[in-house]
Amino acid sequence: MGKGITSRTEDYSQWYNELVDKADLAEHSAVRGCMVIKPYGFAIWEKMQAALDKMFKDTGHSNAYFPLFIPKSFFSKEASHVEGFATECAVVTHYRLKNDGTGNIVVDEEAKLEEELIVRPTSETIIWNTYRGWIESYRDLPILVNQWANVVRWEMRTRLFLRTAEFLWQEGHTAHATQAEAIAEAEQMLDVYATFAEQWMAMPVVRGRKTETERFAGAVDTYCIEALMQDGKALQAGTSHFLGQNFAKAFDVKFTSKEGKLEHVWATSWGVSTRLMGALIMAHSDDAGLVLPPMLAPIQVVIVPIYKTEEERQEINLLVDELMAAGKQKDISMKFDDRDTHRPGFKFAEWELKGVPVRLTVGARDLKNGTVEIARRDQRTKETVSKEGLIDRIETLLADIQESIFDTAKTFQMEKTTEVDSYEEFKEVLENKGGFISAHWDGTVETEKQIKEETKATIRCIPINNKQELGTCIVTGKPSTQRVLFAKAY
Amino acid sequence: MGKGITSRTEDYSQWYNELVDKADLAEHSAVRGCMVIKPYGFAIWEKMQAALDKMFKDTGHSNAYFPLFIPKSFFSKEASHVEGFATECAVVTHYRLKNDGTGNIVVDEEAKLEEELIVRPTSETIIWNTYRGWIESYRDLPILVNQWANVVRWEMRTRLFLRTAEFLWQEGHTAHATQAEAIAEAEQMLDVYATFAEQWMAMPVVRGRKTETERFAGAVDTYCIEALMQDGKALQAGTSHFLGQNFAKAFDVKFTSKEGKLEHVWATSWGVSTRLMGALIMAHSDDAGLVLPPMLAPIQVVIVPIYKTEEERQEINLLVDELMAAGKQKDISMKFDDRDTHRPGFKFAEWELKGVPVRLTVGARDLKNGTVEIARRDQRTKETVSKEGLIDRIETLLADIQESIFDTAKTFQMEKTTEVDSYEEFKEVLENKGGFISAHWDGTVETEKQIKEETKATIRCIPINNKQELGTCIVTGKPSTQRVLFAKAY
Repeated sequence: MGKGITSRTEDYSQWYNELVDKADLAEHSAVRGCMVIKPYGFAIWEKMQAALDKMFKDTGHSNAYFPLFIPKSFFSKEASHVEGFATECAVVTHYRLKNDGTGNIVVDEEAKLEEELIVRPTSETIIWNTYRGWIESYRDLPILVNQWANVVRWEMRTRLFLRTAEFLWQEGHTAHATQAEAIAEAEQMLDVYATFAEQWMAMPVVRGRKTETERFAGAVDTYCIEALMQDGKALQAGTSHFLGQNFAKAFDVKFTSKEGKLEHVWATSWGVSTRLMGALIMAHSDDAGLVLPPMLAPIQVVIVPIYKTEEERQEINLLVDELMAAGKQKDISMKFDDRDTHRPGFKFAEWELKGVPVRLTVGARDLKNGTVEIARRDQRTKETVSKEGLIDRIETLLADIQESIFDTAKTFQMEKTTEVDSYEEFKEVLENKGGFISAHWDGTVETEKQIKEETKATIRCIPINNKQELGTCIVTGKPSTQRVLFAKAY
Repeated sequence: MGKGITSRTEDYSQWYNELVDKADLAEHSAVRGCMVIKPYGFAIWEKMQAALDKMFKDTGHSNAYFPLFIPKSFFSKEASHVEGFATECAVVTHYRLKNDGTGNIVVDEEAKLEEELIVRPTSETIIWNTYRGWIESYRDLPILVNQWANVVRWEMRTRLFLRTAEFLWQEGHTAHATQAEAIAEAEQMLDVYATFAEQWMAMPVVRGRKTETERFAGAVDTYCIEALMQDGKALQAGTSHFLGQNFAKAFDVKFTSKEGKLEHVWATSWGVSTRLMGALIMAHSDDAGLVLPPMLAPIQVVIVPIYKTEEERQEINLLVDELMAAGKQKDISMKFDDRDTHRPGFKFAEWELKGVPVRLTVGARDLKNGTVEIARRDQRTKETVSKEGLIDRIETLLADIQESIFDTAKTFQMEKTTEVDSYEEFKEVLENKGGFISAHWDGTVETEKQIKEETKATIRCIPINNKQELGTCIVTGKPSTQRVLFAKAY
């Protein structure tokens, strides 16, 4: 079928690129760094969105929408934010094109904006400028708002889903009367992300806090979830920031407290993006293609018929109608692949490549025996079972697969997490094994920088509820009270 | 409560602006022409999105995502399209800002794009450029794709929801093997829009086709739904275009037919936008505020308690818990407004302003009598009813309200549709009555233009299945075989 892909051991990066392409997930567009998310890829993203959106609403948040453009001057207002975000971004300078008279379309120089507009790389500035008008008293707080949107960061080296100039994401922006409430919100949203990653994506994550160096530009504290990919590299899958009063001060957002005092508002922001698609692909898939956890699979069960005669075809159709109706009752998403333009073998490979968790095959012998062949994608096993009680069996199987994919990834993560006590060992593990390396660090920016320069590994996070234990920094030998997690990262 | 608004008769336009503001639907942002859609307004839009999205999927469409940016040169490829869309739009010319050394953020002139990028005003060009890679044979057709996205058109005079520089919309883009199939698709999607407008928005519409003048830039035929607002002006609520082979030719998209011939692909596109929010507001609301059809109301029932003692308060809470649980069972969206910071009268006015279809009030006397006061927003009536069977009664009431709002709008539309047979009568009706005017027209661009210049009325559409009847053009006296619908429009 010409859809075979490079194996992971052969070239992991090439494997990823081919998988994204051949499973019809996404492709590069005519615009540098911007991707097209194809219908099958987008259907997975929609399932992610729906699950996350429900979790946000269950925790009291509402959606809203803020402008795509941000006036250039807004970025100068929060000092550290401008360094992080207002550099590599798309700048709108004009608002009109015109025909130059020879049929060429050119920019109309007379339609120049007084102040350039930045295509949002993130929306803290425009949102906090808006919140100033929404907040007067403690009665207006908290504001618990989320936005689903596209953002643009002018990345020089891009990879589909993992790093693109334009990407889709959600960004929560909340406003609170107290520091404690804002911190609790940031922590709650980290929990939401971790729960989503583990329960829906079947992807185990480490919850932690970023070091000062890796913190979001403008944040007091950045919480994150970190996942491990099959090549032993870490991927930051979501972040939640406690922003202190930084943006409230930059945009002059104050409220009158219960006690009648005028105070600056406390803030959080938190986001996950289409990058999660990259994480999902890399966490579970194999050399035959995608492996999707059933809870995020647009098609959970595909049925492939095998027949020689028209009579057999019709008999199979009747059985499938029955199965599809029963599946619908249980909210199982089933597809009957009755294309007569492709052979069964082609279909098997295609649905395997696309990661459909369960495949049913019905042939002439099955009709006679009252059976169906059932194949599970994750373990690539199959068995022939009675058609009686099949939908119940599938329901159980889907839950099993969801759990099993998580367990496999969890086992991998644990095997690939190594405690080391010397810099030599650190380098040796990083070189030969990869994964998370748990080591003592003296807490300084200098040491962190040195390790990064010498090994390309960064501190992924200081795990939440980290065990306190005395030790010495693997580089400087200075005393340390806890281990942090290092890894090479996407 | 300071939330009173200007009446419709006093100043319709001012009434609209105040309603959008005070019902917390949307507001102007710091960026010229771009709006902030506030949580309550966005919740209504989300209900619209969910209903439309399901209708699109039920008719076989999938969602996908294409880049925000379009290379400038793409607009030159389809001649009529460039005139319509590539003029007033946001142009990205640079990809970097920098600190100029004195702390000012300036555009980095060294980071100038080789080719300017246009922020999409609509996506036909980038999508058809993409489809070229997706289509080889008739087996790849049809492509039935929809995109939910933000688009930008640099409008000089903007009004919240009705005309903004950035707005949210969906745009369907389909590709077909035959002309007949593409036309059937364009007509099907017009039906979807009309059904949505009438069944969900409770807003009667006329289905029709645009004249050549009013057609979408690049379309062979534009279908539309037109609604009538309470001030007698028409509003185009959705369009569906048969694009012929125009974009396939412009972007060289061909397929091999079953017969082995290489042919250009046939296309449609269709869209509705946040403009529907403006239509929804103007179609039904009154001088007390929003009137929302229950099927699109984020809150369908609000409960306001009236108590003097803590004991009464607790007793009401118990009753409300019961009601809320029963409502949840029936998927009725209920809110208990138990704020102790506001008086009942304030709450009544607020929920009326926000258009909540049903309000329940529970007071001390109700507790004693086993009753509840139930008020319906649309007719501003109330009655006291037994709490027994209340949820069933509410369910029926919500359906009644949905129907009643539609009926009121339908009666209004019929009353405001006038057949005229002379230009004098035309002008008289337009001036004194407004609404749709059904008149004979000679079918020429010149006459259409003359009428527009002299009266500001445009041909809203040639209704679908229009009655064929002989007559004479009201302006030129030339023969005509059918009446068309004129109106002043938003």
